[in-house]
Amino acid sequence: MANKNNWMLPEGIEELLPENAARLEKMRRELLDLFSSWGYQYVIPPLVEYLDSLLTGTGPEIDLQTFKVTDQISGRTLGIRADMTPQVARIAVHQIRSKAPTRLCYLGSVLQARGAKIEKSRSPIQVGAELYGSRHIKSDVEVIQLMLEVLAVAGLQNVHLDLGHVGIFRGLSKQSGLSEQQEADLFDVLQRKSTDEVEALLQTFDCEKQWVEVFQKLLLLNGDISVLEEAKKSLSIAGEAVQKAISELQDVANIMQAFYPSLPLYFDLAELRCYQYQTGIVFAAFVPGFGSEVARGGRYDAMAEEFGCAQPATGFSADIKVLARLSADRKAEALAVILAPNDSDPELYETIRDLRASGKAVVQQLPDSNAEPSYTSKLCKHDGRWVVR
Amino acid sequence: MANKNNWMLPEGIEELLPENAARLEKMRRELLDLFSSWGYQYVIPPLVEYLDSLLTGTGPEIDLQTFKVTDQISGRTLGIRADMTPQVARIAVHQIRSKAPTRLCYLGSVLQARGAKIEKSRSPIQVGAELYGSRHIKSDVEVIQLMLEVLAVAGLQNVHLDLGHVGIFRGLSKQSGLSEQQEADLFDVLQRKSTDEVEALLQTFDCEKQWVEVFQKLLLLNGDISVLEEAKKSLSIAGEAVQKAISELQDVANIMQAFYPSLPLYFDLAELRCYQYQTGIVFAAFVPGFGSEVARGGRYDAMAEEFGCAQPATGFSADIKVLARLSADRKAEALAVILAPNDSDPELYETIRDLRASGKAVVQQLPDSNAEPSYTSKLCKHDGRWVVR
Repeated sequence: MANKNNWMLPEGIEELLPENAARLEKMRRELLDLFSSWGYQYVIPPLVEYLDSLLTGTGPEIDLQTFKVTDQISGRTLGIRADMTPQVARIAVHQIRSKAPTRLCYLGSVLQARGAKIEKSRSPIQVGAELYGSRHIKSDVEVIQLMLEVLAVAGLQNVHLDLGHVGIFRGLSKQSGLSEQQEADLFDVLQRKSTDEVEALLQTFDCEKQWVEVFQKLLLLNGDISVLEEAKKSLSIAGEAVQKAISELQDVANIMQAFYPSLPLYFDLAELRCYQYQTGIVFAAFVPGFGSEVARGGRYDAMAEEFGCAQPATGFSADIKVLARLSADRKAEALAVILAPNDSDPELYETIRDLRASGKAVVQQLPDSNAEPSYTSKLCKHDGRWVVR
Repeated sequence: MANKNNWMLPEGIEELLPENAARLEKMRRELLDLFSSWGYQYVIPPLVEYLDSLLTGTGPEIDLQTFKVTDQISGRTLGIRADMTPQVARIAVHQIRSKAPTRLCYLGSVLQARGAKIEKSRSPIQVGAELYGSRHIKSDVEVIQLMLEVLAVAGLQNVHLDLGHVGIFRGLSKQSGLSEQQEADLFDVLQRKSTDEVEALLQTFDCEKQWVEVFQKLLLLNGDISVLEEAKKSLSIAGEAVQKAISELQDVANIMQAFYPSLPLYFDLAELRCYQYQTGIVFAAFVPGFGSEVARGGRYDAMAEEFGCAQPATGFSADIKVLARLSADRKAEALAVILAPNDSDPELYETIRDLRASGKAVVQQLPDSNAEPSYTSKLCKHDGRWVVR
């Protein structure tokens, strides 16, 4: 006992002390109110589920990130959620069961067994919104807009938006005849951004030369909106699925430019690292001085089907602890504390009750306290009445 | 895959769908605002900690209730919190470090590996308040009053309050010469409320006859406030510690009767089942029709010392999911939803933005939706302007 390291928290696990907790709580309410004003209904999924339910429709990365425990009641394996999106998809499909588009939002702690980058927490408080039941790019645009509103409410400035489309890489892999394993290997190599490695790998697959060139070109397709015109040319041998993906991206980009003329847009058609279960348009928001994205999302039309009922879906999420940290210069107004003396006068008691009911914070001194708590004003008796001084 | 049981949640694990989640969120804000108005500062402890830190100052029952996982980074054992009180005590001692009394509150999910009674969740959302730095019964009274305010905010009616004092049983055990193991065995038997079993057990300990009688009398000391007068007589051979405990209870009872003349008080000097780390006054609130307590707490002066710095403490907690369920007849006003058509008119966009900014909920129809979401009014174009109909 009493090893002083006992009081250290594990790597990537944080706690919030009063000032930061108050800032986060304020932002929490603003974000949930924002979601509500867009018609997104709040749901509270459970912290644990049976593992097979929790991992439905997700990739191996989320499995690796999920802490597992044995349920002493059922003997089955439980997972502690590493991502709330699959939980909310299950709720949309199995609980809400609406024919009309379903808009849901959520906010809660998740845990990640391995963590990701240095800058990332292993215990984010994930906040997000998901829209089920529409395949139209207007639903992608809606969630991107809502994500930008979230960042605005959080007070983040100089946001830029990255856009991509998972369907481009997937379509090219399929068309070029790669096996599932080959596609996964190529995916890994693409993330390292080396055209030489891409070439070397594809040669081991006996891939036709024209496809080697296409994948090398894909790696170079990043930059401003002109990338989309370039893609149409460079990927001209690609089939309908890829052409459709490019034109969806173009449509989203056009709408976003019209709505937010000064928002910097960036395109990267080979950057898919963070997407586990997405199938279409993907997007991420960045701010200067923070190395990872501050929010991200995308379309994931295949997940609901694995939950037993096909339903297109798009959504985004962020870590509200990151948002609160990045907005830390916005000072949370500390509530003014009124100090009341240790006195049993019933009139004092009533005065305190009324002050509290009117939203003021009142702390009453205890008979045995050595030091006064910090306060901004005091309750004193003046001409027989209790007044705040 | 696709076993339909996949979508069942484990026993004792619940999720909250929109109506209940909205009710809980409303109550959450009211309770945190209440705590704030009493000068209790909100903190957010982490969902997991190193197990040795998490279990500091707690009893074996909390250990059994704690899910354990291995930290892949440090190799050490982590515990998923089953109770936030020890976390908040650690924060008070190691992070806040104030000489003045420290008032903290918290709200978050906890997990219990085994669950307790049928009626209890294994995934409560624990809400509570803790007051550090005062040994005076006025601090116990303060947290009991705050607990009653919580129940009032939750709209619970016909609350009754149970009061006890852990020091009575502890003092008698010590004075009668029981070993630690004997005390634990006697504790278990006392919970079964059988005077015969108490006698049989104490005989195996070779306990003096006068103490057998005292423990048998202890078992009968439950009922209204007259129990305290009876206790002074029945336990007259008990020493100073026990007499002091009884008179503390008497003092608390007197103050509570003066403040809440119509609040039913119930005393049980042998009922200690739910108290893991308490050392003094303990209390629990009950409402008709719910078999377990709806909130409970007590004094725990020994925990902070195990965290390396002695500090008296008292506090209480509740499961806000239970509070929200019991107040389910208080209808949460569903936010009225305004339905906007699928139309790209910039004026429509501005109208929607203004409505949302004014706190209204607006959902815009998507081009491919088969069904309309439920709504209470519609945005229509009338004489060239968008109006809510």
